[in-house]
Amino acid sequence: MSKKVVIVGGVAGGASTAARLRRLDEQAEIILFERDGYISFANCGLPYYIGETIVERSNLILQTPQMMLDRFNIDARLHSEVVSIDSAQKKVTVKSADRGVYEETYDVLVLSPGAKPFVPPIAGVGSDKIFTVRNIPDADRIKAVVDNMAHKKEGTEAVVIGGGFIGVEMAENLVERGIAVTLVEAAPHILPPFDDDMVTLAEKELADHGVRVIAGDGVQGFAEIPDRDEIEVALQSGARLKAGMVILAIGVKPDVDFLKGSGLQFGPRGHIVVNDRMQTNLDSVYAVGDAIQVVDFVNGSETAIPLAGPANKQGRIAADNICGIDSRFRGSQGTSIIKIFGLTGAVTGNNERTLRRLGMAYRVVHVHPNSHASYYPGATPITLKVLFDERGKVLGAQAFGYDGVDKRIDVIATVIRMGGTIDDLKELELSYAPPYSSAKDPVNMAGFLAENVLAGRADLFVSSDIDGMDREKAVLLDVRTDLEYENGHIPGAIHLPLDELRPRLGELDPSKAYWVYCKVGFRGYLAERILKQRGFKARNLSGGYASYEIAHY
Amino acid sequence: MSKKVVIVGGVAGGASTAARLRRLDEQAEIILFERDGYISFANCGLPYYIGETIVERSNLILQTPQMMLDRFNIDARLHSEVVSIDSAQKKVTVKSADRGVYEETYDVLVLSPGAKPFVPPIAGVGSDKIFTVRNIPDADRIKAVVDNMAHKKEGTEAVVIGGGFIGVEMAENLVERGIAVTLVEAAPHILPPFDDDMVTLAEKELADHGVRVIAGDGVQGFAEIPDRDEIEVALQSGARLKAGMVILAIGVKPDVDFLKGSGLQFGPRGHIVVNDRMQTNLDSVYAVGDAIQVVDFVNGSETAIPLAGPANKQGRIAADNICGIDSRFRGSQGTSIIKIFGLTGAVTGNNERTLRRLGMAYRVVHVHPNSHASYYPGATPITLKVLFDERGKVLGAQAFGYDGVDKRIDVIATVIRMGGTIDDLKELELSYAPPYSSAKDPVNMAGFLAENVLAGRADLFVSSDIDGMDREKAVLLDVRTDLEYENGHIPGAIHLPLDELRPRLGELDPSKAYWVYCKVGFRGYLAERILKQRGFKARNLSGGYASYEIAHY
Ligand SMILES: Cc1cc2nc3c(=O)[nH]c(=O)nc-3n(C[C@H](O)[C@H](O)[C@H](O)COP(=O)(O)OP(=O)(O)OC[C@H]3O[C@@H](n4cnc5c(N)ncnc54)[C@H](O)[C@@H]3O)c2cc1C
Ligand SMILES: Cc1cc2nc3c(=O)[nH]c(=O)nc-3n(C[C@H](O)[C@H](O)[C@H](O)COP(=O)(O)OP(=O)(O)OC[C@H]3O[C@@H](n4cnc5c(N)ncnc54)[C@H](O)[C@@H]3O)c2cc1C
Ligand SMILES: CC(C)(COP(=O)(O)OP(=O)(O)OC[C@H]1O[C@@H](n2cnc3c(N)ncnc32)[C@H](O)[C@@H]1OP(=O)(O)O)[C@@H](O)C(=O)NCCC(=O)NCCS
Ligand SMILES: CC(C)(COP(=O)(O)OP(=O)(O)OC[C@H]1O[C@@H](n2cnc3c(N)ncnc32)[C@H](O)[C@@H]1OP(=O)(O)O)[C@@H](O)C(=O)NCCC(=O)NCCS
Repeated sequence: MSKKVVIVGGVAGGASTAARLRRLDEQAEIILFERDGYISFANCGLPYYIGETIVERSNLILQTPQMMLDRFNIDARLHSEVVSIDSAQKKVTVKSADRGVYEETYDVLVLSPGAKPFVPPIAGVGSDKIFTVRNIPDADRIKAVVDNMAHKKEGTEAVVIGGGFIGVEMAENLVERGIAVTLVEAAPHILPPFDDDMVTLAEKELADHGVRVIAGDGVQGFAEIPDRDEIEVALQSGARLKAGMVILAIGVKPDVDFLKGSGLQFGPRGHIVVNDRMQTNLDSVYAVGDAIQVVDFVNGSETAIPLAGPANKQGRIAADNICGIDSRFRGSQGTSIIKIFGLTGAVTGNNERTLRRLGMAYRVVHVHPNSHASYYPGATPITLKVLFDERGKVLGAQAFGYDGVDKRIDVIATVIRMGGTIDDLKELELSYAPPYSSAKDPVNMAGFLAENVLAGRADLFVSSDIDGMDREKAVLLDVRTDLEYENGHIPGAIHLPLDELRPRLGELDPSKAYWVYCKVGFRGYLAERILKQRGFKARNLSGGYASYEIAHY
Repeated sequence: MSKKVVIVGGVAGGASTAARLRRLDEQAEIILFERDGYISFANCGLPYYIGETIVERSNLILQTPQMMLDRFNIDARLHSEVVSIDSAQKKVTVKSADRGVYEETYDVLVLSPGAKPFVPPIAGVGSDKIFTVRNIPDADRIKAVVDNMAHKKEGTEAVVIGGGFIGVEMAENLVERGIAVTLVEAAPHILPPFDDDMVTLAEKELADHGVRVIAGDGVQGFAEIPDRDEIEVALQSGARLKAGMVILAIGVKPDVDFLKGSGLQFGPRGHIVVNDRMQTNLDSVYAVGDAIQVVDFVNGSETAIPLAGPANKQGRIAADNICGIDSRFRGSQGTSIIKIFGLTGAVTGNNERTLRRLGMAYRVVHVHPNSHASYYPGATPITLKVLFDERGKVLGAQAFGYDGVDKRIDVIATVIRMGGTIDDLKELELSYAPPYSSAKDPVNMAGFLAENVLAGRADLFVSSDIDGMDREKAVLLDVRTDLEYENGHIPGAIHLPLDELRPRLGELDPSKAYWVYCKVGFRGYLAERILKQRGFKARNLSGGYASYEIAHY
């Protein structure tokens, strides 16, 4: 007998489940319920449609119910909200635009309702000048306002609340449309997957393109301004911003209200709990996507990672298990990437913040190698930070740059996925010709440096250590050239260029510890090696003056 | 007591060994002998200097002897050819421009003499119109001729003999200088690391940019044309080409003549035999780089892979071992990459040719996914081929495309390095935002398909299987749209669009096997799944009509 599978939510997780299910089981009856007017659309493309990088609205829609029927024999029902599930009776209740309220039975139920924008219960939040970005109707609404702004005299500015990925993408795309944007972030910095000593590169790129970034200040309330087509945003600091529109993007929460009372087990932050086969605690009920809780692949703790890659893969895994194939989801590592004007930022695995919170010991290296051979035109530096433990296991990486960032983070993501160590980073045989990389790829470089750290050959300090240094016992030593030193150096640093270090060693005091730095860390490392082998105490600034400047932006 | 290390060859392997040695041992005496007038130069940049993409000649030179002295306290001696080594006495004999012939003793000897262009003993090969490309003087000579060609009336064409990486790079760069180029390759196709069903993409790109590619025809001899500034190239087919210059790039062989009679052990093709610590059979003698034999990381056989990445890494490993650090070289997997005008080709691991030669069983998949989300502007297809064994172990991959090729091959190279399987390809969590990739990255896609193959869900055939199909028992079925079919299809194929397949199944003959194809393989796979589950025999063309066209270019 063919089975009847009911799927709630028709986009990333839901549509993926449905398509794979059909391929595995031509006989199954598959019904897809979607509350909205669209299935299978490109959520991730919405900001770029508003920004008009994506010009054709139709390009956002990958599959329609008709296509799903013709190709996959799937019954996709739009404007059909599942309002409750009954796992004892194996049925769902549906509130539909055309058929009213009805019940549908199932043999297997798959939940992929996703996550909805978090809207804080603060004054004025209901204003129609405040928008969230989740689906095509949201994008249509925002785009209509933006299209109109060009013709307006007042209210031509926008405030984006929240400096996460969606907030930053929205800021960029509004700027692309000529709108003046202020980005407000309550935390000290935007883009929480990145550490503070990296993310200023993103903040600088935003500022360089005219975005006013206000970090460390939260929103307190909103008030429409009488007789003006504007809204006022009150910040906790007391500052007041005026804007024609506000984008609220302070995070998402699982869209699971309809599941309350169903007997489903939820995690501490309201996510559906599943096992590695995407099975919930209820018989024949699976869940995937942004609404579920997953295992952090690196540290093993429970977390939630609302990203399309995992959602798509989880859908495929759920379908497999429904059809008796033993597929497992082994956790998410949070690999993600963002374009910020010309800059790319990408991250994989855990950052320092997470590792510290969990009390996990880690070591860190910073490098700034070129995206490809420096003698071939167009090379630009990649700022790469790699975190690893005492046994060399790679825990995470973050990178910013103008070219080749995605490649390096994907390579490190692969190493992490395979449980690799810094020795693997070092040994990887990556493709090299001058337009693409260097004979020692940036990933290899990070591996070499990390190996030196663990072997005790390189003793690194980071920018934030400088505040705590005992200037009686330790001396900051700048080993760059005269010109570099004159153009700016760390306060209190003395100066002795690397290439003069050996002959001028007599000028140094063997009773002091030398905290060496250069531009990116390479010459500092050479100086450290010379000093240590000549009987001095020495350490080297990780990532050099370049990393110091990033951390002090 | 500090040790005295003598290094032969001052470029990729030699200079890397020297630099790492100094970092590990500040006291060692390090002498670097270089036959030529340059150490530490960018071999890989030479074609681009000739093509004037790299404008400044000085950019090709990374380190001079003076820099090596100031920074690393290394004694680098130019124009100093080591003419013999005596491992019993631990000394080398040097023929130098300034000091004549002298001996230098060593505690440790490191050989990094590299490989030299193979010059076949054929008629006329000594002509001064024939050039090889190895070092800066070679590049200077070629560039002088090229610079002059612009002013010439005759002899303004070039013939490049050899379609390996250097030959193709030279062809491209000569075209960039406005020269008409014919590329001659004796094998049926150029670029031997790629299989025949992929490499035509490179041949097409060359042709599209005006390079005349003559494959399957070898050079027989050369003759200078009297009274003209030209040389005639006679091919084995009898064809004759005229040119102002000939670039001979038919491969390299180890530059080890000076080591004959030294007692050093050589491999079957004349490479120095070393263990995984880069030690030769002679006491205290190490060897690295293009001159050595290495283990093929994938199949374990002995091979030689003349690439800069391995040479640099081997130099570092040799230095480690000289200083008592237990570093090992675990073999080369031949990851390499080439820019051909706008196209990128990259490869890692073994190709079909190698696997067949070794009698290793393998499976293959071809996919053509977009470089990034298709709804975001600028996406272009990547043609990706992945080879794996019955247990899923990834053996090799090849890709061509206009964007994102290097990333995908590097990710797969990483999986291979870590001993990974197609399940790893499938599960990798790679960075996704619309400008960079898709929620299912091309690498994931190849993994899904490979999994289906091994699970027996997808039964693939390749273009070359079509010739041998029994048309009585099997029917070629094109499931693309009417328009696609009319614009060109495989001879003899019948046509039934995928979206009409279910209702029109009655038109098919259950006694036949259906060999299905679509454009890239996806719809063919869907058709295969439907057919099989409805009681038909079916298989699907790997990579679809796109791969068929590539194989039949
Ligand atoms: C603006 C934006 C940009 C993004 N950019 C990226 C990016 O660059 N990279 C990335 O990896 N991820 C990105 N994401 C996240 C990604 O889109 C999600 O991770 C992914 O879509 C989650 O899939 P899902 O199936 O869980 O939920 P969704 O794709 O949100 O689908 C859930 C669907 O279920 C429907 N639904 C909910 N409840 C019910 C109900 N009771 N009955 C019927 N239907 C219901 C909803 O209407 C919705 O259509 C972005 C998201 C947004 C909003
Ligand atoms: C045109 C060109 C393009 C290339 N492009 C790429 C690329 O894109 N990617 C890539 O990975 N690889 C590329 N390579 C290959 C790469 O350059 C080599 O793999 C690498 O340089 C090998 O290093 P090595 O130290 O073994 O030899 P080399 O770098 O060749 O150095 C050997 C040196 O030893 C000297 N020498 C030899 N014998 C003696 C002696 N008896 N006494 C003293 N000195 C001696 C030689 O003069 C030479 O300078 C390219 C090579 C060429 C020629
Ligand atoms: C498009 C969507 C319906 C999924 O459909 P899908 O049929 O799984 O399509 P995909 O394009 O991902 O193709 C994957 C399948 O094709 C197969 N395939 C891909 N290329 C192939 C080829 N060249 N030859 C053979 N098979 C191929 C894969 O093996 C896989 O099949 P499997 O899962 O049975 O192994 C769903 O992902 C969706 O709705 N996406 C839009 C929403 C979304 O993801 N939003 C967030 C990102 S913006
Ligand atoms: C340049 C050359 C002399 C090597 O010198 P090198 O000192 O090893 O230089 P690299 O730039 O490769 O730097 C690598 C070292 O710097 C360290 N390093 C790099 N960036 C660092 C940073 N930011 N902080 C600290 N250390 C850093 C690495 O750990 C490594 O040191 P280790 O080997 O002791 O671990 C040699 O590779 C060469 O001659 N190259 C040109 C020829 C060539 O390769 N041709 C073929 C390709 S065109």
